[in-house]
Amino acid sequence: MGIVDVRQPLGEHQQQQQQQHHRHDDMQVLKEVAPDLPVVPGPLNDYRQTASFNWKQLRVVLEDPEILRVKMNLWRRLDADPVFAHPKVTPTVEEQKRHVSNQLKHFVGKDLIPQEVHSWPYKNKTRFMMAINAATSSWNKNLSVKWGLGVSLFTNALLSLGTERHLPFYEAVWENRFLFALVMTEVGHGSNTKSVRTTATYDPKTQEFIVNTPDFQAAKCWAGNLGKTCTHALLFAQLITADDTCHGLHAFLVPVRHPETLMPYPGVTVGDLGEKIGLNGIDNGFVMFNNYRIPRENLLNRTGDVTAEGEYESCFQNPEQILGAALENLLAGRVAISQESIHDLCTAVTVSVRYAAVRKQGGPRNAKEELSLLEYPLHQWRLFPYVAAACTFKVFIGDFTDQYLELVEQSYKGAEMKDLTSTASEVHAIVSAMKPLITWTCASALQESREACGGHGYLRASVIGSMRADHDATVTYEGDNNVLLQQASNWIVKHWNLAKQDNTSAILEVSPLGTLHFLINGEEKLKGRFSGSNVGDVMNVHFVKSAYEWLMCWLTQALDTELQRLKSAGLDRFTARGRVHAFYSKPLALAYGENNVLCYFWEKLRTPGIPSNVKHVMEHLYLLFGLWCIQRNLVYFYRGNFANGSQMADLIQEACQSVCHLLKPDIVAVIDAIAHPDSVIKSILGRADGKVYDHLYDAYMSQQGNMDRPSWWKEVAAKPQSKL
Amino acid sequence: MGIVDVRQPLGEHQQQQQQQHHRHDDMQVLKEVAPDLPVVPGPLNDYRQTASFNWKQLRVVLEDPEILRVKMNLWRRLDADPVFAHPKVTPTVEEQKRHVSNQLKHFVGKDLIPQEVHSWPYKNKTRFMMAINAATSSWNKNLSVKWGLGVSLFTNALLSLGTERHLPFYEAVWENRFLFALVMTEVGHGSNTKSVRTTATYDPKTQEFIVNTPDFQAAKCWAGNLGKTCTHALLFAQLITADDTCHGLHAFLVPVRHPETLMPYPGVTVGDLGEKIGLNGIDNGFVMFNNYRIPRENLLNRTGDVTAEGEYESCFQNPEQILGAALENLLAGRVAISQESIHDLCTAVTVSVRYAAVRKQGGPRNAKEELSLLEYPLHQWRLFPYVAAACTFKVFIGDFTDQYLELVEQSYKGAEMKDLTSTASEVHAIVSAMKPLITWTCASALQESREACGGHGYLRASVIGSMRADHDATVTYEGDNNVLLQQASNWIVKHWNLAKQDNTSAILEVSPLGTLHFLINGEEKLKGRFSGSNVGDVMNVHFVKSAYEWLMCWLTQALDTELQRLKSAGLDRFTARGRVHAFYSKPLALAYGENNVLCYFWEKLRTPGIPSNVKHVMEHLYLLFGLWCIQRNLVYFYRGNFANGSQMADLIQEACQSVCHLLKPDIVAVIDAIAHPDSVIKSILGRADGKVYDHLYDAYMSQQGNMDRPSWWKEVAAKPQSKL
Repeated sequence: MGIVDVRQPLGEHQQQQQQQHHRHDDMQVLKEVAPDLPVVPGPLNDYRQTASFNWKQLRVVLEDPEILRVKMNLWRRLDADPVFAHPKVTPTVEEQKRHVSNQLKHFVGKDLIPQEVHSWPYKNKTRFMMAINAATSSWNKNLSVKWGLGVSLFTNALLSLGTERHLPFYEAVWENRFLFALVMTEVGHGSNTKSVRTTATYDPKTQEFIVNTPDFQAAKCWAGNLGKTCTHALLFAQLITADDTCHGLHAFLVPVRHPETLMPYPGVTVGDLGEKIGLNGIDNGFVMFNNYRIPRENLLNRTGDVTAEGEYESCFQNPEQILGAALENLLAGRVAISQESIHDLCTAVTVSVRYAAVRKQGGPRNAKEELSLLEYPLHQWRLFPYVAAACTFKVFIGDFTDQYLELVEQSYKGAEMKDLTSTASEVHAIVSAMKPLITWTCASALQESREACGGHGYLRASVIGSMRADHDATVTYEGDNNVLLQQASNWIVKHWNLAKQDNTSAILEVSPLGTLHFLINGEEKLKGRFSGSNVGDVMNVHFVKSAYEWLMCWLTQALDTELQRLKSAGLDRFTARGRVHAFYSKPLALAYGENNVLCYFWEKLRTPGIPSNVKHVMEHLYLLFGLWCIQRNLVYFYRGNFANGSQMADLIQEACQSVCHLLKPDIVAVIDAIAHPDSVIKSILGRADGKVYDHLYDAYMSQQGNMDRPSWWKEVAAKPQSKL
Repeated sequence: MGIVDVRQPLGEHQQQQQQQHHRHDDMQVLKEVAPDLPVVPGPLNDYRQTASFNWKQLRVVLEDPEILRVKMNLWRRLDADPVFAHPKVTPTVEEQKRHVSNQLKHFVGKDLIPQEVHSWPYKNKTRFMMAINAATSSWNKNLSVKWGLGVSLFTNALLSLGTERHLPFYEAVWENRFLFALVMTEVGHGSNTKSVRTTATYDPKTQEFIVNTPDFQAAKCWAGNLGKTCTHALLFAQLITADDTCHGLHAFLVPVRHPETLMPYPGVTVGDLGEKIGLNGIDNGFVMFNNYRIPRENLLNRTGDVTAEGEYESCFQNPEQILGAALENLLAGRVAISQESIHDLCTAVTVSVRYAAVRKQGGPRNAKEELSLLEYPLHQWRLFPYVAAACTFKVFIGDFTDQYLELVEQSYKGAEMKDLTSTASEVHAIVSAMKPLITWTCASALQESREACGGHGYLRASVIGSMRADHDATVTYEGDNNVLLQQASNWIVKHWNLAKQDNTSAILEVSPLGTLHFLINGEEKLKGRFSGSNVGDVMNVHFVKSAYEWLMCWLTQALDTELQRLKSAGLDRFTARGRVHAFYSKPLALAYGENNVLCYFWEKLRTPGIPSNVKHVMEHLYLLFGLWCIQRNLVYFYRGNFANGSQMADLIQEACQSVCHLLKPDIVAVIDAIAHPDSVIKSILGRADGKVYDHLYDAYMSQQGNMDRPSWWKEVAAKPQSKL
């Protein structure tokens, strides 16, 4: 799949989709990626019977079956290996670290990643690694983080920042001899990488860099693997030459511990930073260097080097390659996090929707049986939009990842790609909006699912709690969500003038992927007014699409206007941007993320070959996601005079409820299409057989000693009473 | 403080307030409840210097100094006793239970609760117990839950449901010989108590009740203390007489374990239900009874009894009233949860605001120093509204609790109180709206605070994570939030016809506490239109007050209209209520909760004697909370034609940002006014001295073995390489 305008009607994109969709009826593929589910009489099975489509066919439309196959195979192999088994009770923090470290050894050592993958072209290799990463993340997020930071992300970074002399490190890592930590953040500085205070000063006499930490606030911290297990740090520090010139942040390979003894080297004060909210299998650590010397060659020197004599030299490299490296290093982590987060979102709704089908509560007076929670409109409204989000996100991330990797591959090749720079900016903006949108949506879905599962959702065995705790870090790491949103909105708003000038060709130029196409005829679009008079007018994919375009234009214009106003009032750029962040930039960037999801899904809907009943349910999912977004942004439609009076709000609300109602008979099958296998979900409330109470019983009973008197009973029992 | 209309200008309420406010300058009181804070040069101290008022004076306006004194004293004593020390690393689940069980023994055994309290009148006694409970909850929520369920709430329930013959149980519990569990929920049934399937069948031959659990879905579950440590259950079961008549839910005292051996009795299958998301110091359990016999006298027989011969005798005619009387006990739990939750909210904002003052990041290009996070408008908007919520909630809960307890005391006395029934209904509605509002607001505040503290907020030592995990249960237990909101809205909407009839005296009658006074001239109020033209028009307490009255009327009318419409369309009541839940009932009930908070705080603002600069900052807090609520409900103002075009939204937004800006110099002092002592907050990020990095350093370094090689290093280190 190439880098193409997502709206381009007959590109390579579509052709590949077509090929893919021939597989809807490929029984062998379906058998592998969508194995039959258990047929157990009960409410869940009853709801399966009401579906209007074949969930297996939806499954392979929402995700590339090749990727699915990689994931399903990995899960089968992890499930078969006791090293990767899940503990029944949360182990101590120390034991969790041990457990995951051992898993990592097996993970890298096994042939889970075939040797030949390393020689694949960048895109294929990385796509494969990303599938492995996302699948591993759903198995055990600690393991994927440990592997990602220490092995896969690291080796990618090494290849892009380093040169041939660093290849032995690549091999040592893949051979389980070295383990890395990516070391950037300092105690006193998070996102603001320019303020990094750790230095690497070149000493021509010994041809070494002297790495130093001035004080505790400049101590490196949070780096995963650094606390206990890494052998090396990929360290970001200010490069200083002997003439005291600072050449800015550079990356260095810094030995931290002896690989065979795991003892830290003298001059390195390194330790674990202690228990965290989640991800306690990761040894996040801190490190301080006391004039610690490393060889000159340990500078990753693709973009700049220091000669033996101490001369700093910018290495000539073509700008595309620099761009590629930058994109890779900045964005690969964020793309991977988004992929993982969508996995978590799928699991969250799998658990809560299946539970809602099985769980019965209340009902009309004198009814014979209680109602499933799934029958309650409030419950539908709490959960179904997240199901729609999971499905639309899945399509979006699949197609976008292909575009992203294609871009990086082309850059590395130094290809003379048309629009390379503008594609890179656009990809950066897309990622900056998508990571916050996806991770926050997943976080809310986890919370809503926890609450929707009531008391039983509070059990560890529901698994929602540990998922929430582990997932929580994603909104902060690899770029704080709020900071990223500001970056996305900065990029969007600077193009509003093109809409004002009605400069379509310039818009096409700055937005090769089409995510700014809403700006075309932007001022004209803003004249749009709501004219619906019945629910069909809004329960309509075309309405959703055009309403969102109006919203995008309005939010962009509003931000532009406000920035101009503040500028005229004499505010500097930094202050003005701070002022507009909460009420203009943030909603714009989030809506941009939502609009991108809608556009990619829209495109998917137009792919030929999707069975018509599958397409029909996909339209409902598109509608629900779109209406849900519109509903949350409704006030802007009034504020911007798109709507007046109660009509639009009334109809949107009615449409939201109606689409939920329409989706109800299909929702369990939609879940089946996006659900991971039971061994991955791990939750007793979300298994495919719907036997919630049996699994609950087992969960109660299978805990060691759960019916025994506590070993410490004497400490708390009443003293024997005197019989006198 | 009596049960009075909160708007009544010169009632007992105000007089007491006045007395209270004489204490603003009572140095002895201030010294006890608002001890001096450490003066350490640094950003936090700098922000303290900018305050326009004395935080100590605000502290005693927001909370009754007598209550504060009880809490501060308790905290001092807990801090001095090593039994109540906090572990540095999360212990195993088993060890947590042991730890808290031991704490409970000390807690009940010590003279923390003076003997004379037991002979105090109901209101004074319960107010004291509630202060103890809330303070304990902030110290260790496990301990307060264990004590609440097993001792304090239980003994209150015993006194209200039981009779003299049950007094020995009261004493045994307070003497640490018995421990209770409140046993209601069944595996297959949560909130819907009518569906309880556990039976207690009377056997006249032996004068015993035979308690039985038909199957696993009817097993009792989730009861705290039941898993390992309780000696007795306060069991809710269907009472059946020998003639096979079911008399509905009744409460029984059921021996579960021998107090001296903690061994379960034969016929009782009881165990722990395993690890949970949080609150793992509590042994939540399940129990199944196999035709288990208990003496006739163990029926709590205040509202109904069975004679020795097996005749059922009721004091009430109506079985629903019996149920109502039994469930009235649940209100105390919901009030207590709200109080605890406000404590957690205070801690959440204490941590995140103090951290935001100290933490510096970014700033204008070429600035000498980085800016505190507190300087960023987005950061202010993320946190300050929660500070305002904490302050307004504090005032609300203090005054409302007094009214609530007064009502219960009067009921117990059988006093001929005017409006007793309508007051009871109103109190029920207030509680049903406030518990969801407060617990959800606190949950969001915890999440926002976690994110606002960035990576360091993800450390266990930030304490936000464990608070979130523990607090999470509050939205579910003691009445699921969504179910409670429906109850509140049902009560509100049924009075809309009084507004339509313009029947002021009837409104006064059904709402003795004044929370429905917005209905007075309701239809007239709905004709109101937004007429503001500059920010001063909305940054104005009178605007907030009247806008919220309009909103309340509109939401009530909208729900009423929709219910009528569905009824005309032939829907039964159950189905109609289900349909309106998400989009009408829920927003109405939440807004009702918010409006109550605003009204109580408004009343407090009018109390004579508040120093003017304290009053000034309180007005800002009122404004910010109100504007924040309006902002979230803005779409209704458009939908109901209160506003048109961009004006109202623009001004509200500007006002939100301006009030945050105005509050900035005062915000650290406001936090000081609501902050608990460092020993209670426990977070390294939120200490009063503002030495975040020193505490972070200590946190890293004080963990045992944090710089040691892991004991399991050989399992993961590289194999020695052959030297050949």
